[in-house]
Amino acid sequence: MAEGIRCVEQILENDLLDVVEIITDGSSDLSQFNRISKIDTYEVSITEMAAIADTETPQGVIAICRIPAEPTLDELIQTGSLIVALDALQDPGNMGTVIRTAAWFGAGAIIIGEGSVDPYHPKVVRSTAGATAALPIVRADLEAALEKLEEHQWNTYLLDAGKGSETISKTEFDAKTVLVLGNEANGISPSLVNPDRKKIKIEGTAEKVESLNASIAIGIALYELNRNTDWNSVDQSKKLT
Amino acid sequence: MAEGIRCVEQILENDLLDVVEIITDGSSDLSQFNRISKIDTYEVSITEMAAIADTETPQGVIAICRIPAEPTLDELIQTGSLIVALDALQDPGNMGTVIRTAAWFGAGAIIIGEGSVDPYHPKVVRSTAGATAALPIVRADLEAALEKLEEHQWNTYLLDAGKGSETISKTEFDAKTVLVLGNEANGISPSLVNPDRKKIKIEGTAEKVESLNASIAIGIALYELNRNTDWNSVDQSKKLT
Repeated sequence: MAEGIRCVEQILENDLLDVVEIITDGSSDLSQFNRISKIDTYEVSITEMAAIADTETPQGVIAICRIPAEPTLDELIQTGSLIVALDALQDPGNMGTVIRTAAWFGAGAIIIGEGSVDPYHPKVVRSTAGATAALPIVRADLEAALEKLEEHQWNTYLLDAGKGSETISKTEFDAKTVLVLGNEANGISPSLVNPDRKKIKIEGTAEKVESLNASIAIGIALYELNRNTDWNSVDQSKKLT
Repeated sequence: MAEGIRCVEQILENDLLDVVEIITDGSSDLSQFNRISKIDTYEVSITEMAAIADTETPQGVIAICRIPAEPTLDELIQTGSLIVALDALQDPGNMGTVIRTAAWFGAGAIIIGEGSVDPYHPKVVRSTAGATAALPIVRADLEAALEKLEEHQWNTYLLDAGKGSETISKTEFDAKTVLVLGNEANGISPSLVNPDRKKIKIEGTAEKVESLNASIAIGIALYELNRNTDWNSVDQSKKLT
């Protein structure tokens, strides 16, 4: 369920999701999109819209979309591009922002580990601002997934603000990188930490601020990776998107 | 009103805000903080807590704090450090995250322009994760404030994803930088754009993603500024915090 005019427009414009039907209160005009004539559209009253919508103040249009097929881990291994892995990320707003940001920086896929919020929760979809299907999302047992990727020469980096972490601006990354973001309150699960996985952090200067927001941390890490990695060496044709 | 155990703990630990009273449902133990004995604490029932709290699922503790005094623009001009300016930023979660991130990277102050959400809205305070008073916040007419700062040799940079913007990783910043973040949907107000103000952007690689989230954009910009500016040249003693 994708809610809000901008989100729905993005989905229609970029042909990112299979839209099953549109529900509208008649306030939005979507006639500029060619696809719209082939999609069942239902006009409802404002009261009905309020009952259907996930938001408290509905924006008048909802697209009901099919959840995209997930690639297998074996398919992911072939992508050769950056993978973002989420370890028990619980805030829907953070999850959506991470998906949007990873898509912006051209990540190859997102792996969503157990204990994370559902990536197709309406609030997550809203926070992606229409980027939900801009890259493949795979739900998997993260421990097993990381081991499998590492068997195929992927390198795992753990975003961890704690001791023993290397400053990200001094880290060299390989094209086959898996970047792991932990839970908002507890960070990376201890079961995922091992000496072969490099811990990286984003250094600040303030003493009285405990941490960065999780989606800000991954946003900066993705920017830094994009800045200091020779992405031309990555075969873009292998990407799954 | 600061809600939630982590937010309240941060405030008590860092002595950032003047706490007037604590409201608790008895589920949290704050006895490790020395300050607590001097603060009036009221224990309420879970039903009363639900009525007082701003969140739908209250976390059992609320700190009522005094809004800090705002420095004047004349005082800001003397800081010599980076200032973040928000032009009609409307989402409380974005505002809180921007305050937290600016504090993390040691910005000197935040100017909040007209049309922005109230920085002391409970949802903003929650999103700062206790960093609300970690740097001075000034509410001002942004147009007049920028002009005044520029008269005192401050340089204004507009975060703008549109045409004619320079890639941020190639931009050189001065210590006396004002970084302006625009509205989530409409960007920077046209009245703030002029040829003396450099437009900067964060480049992505994706074609099907329209933009970055506003707080992610400012987070990356602050990281980049922190990385490529010689902050040692800034007289930290002049900072207002």
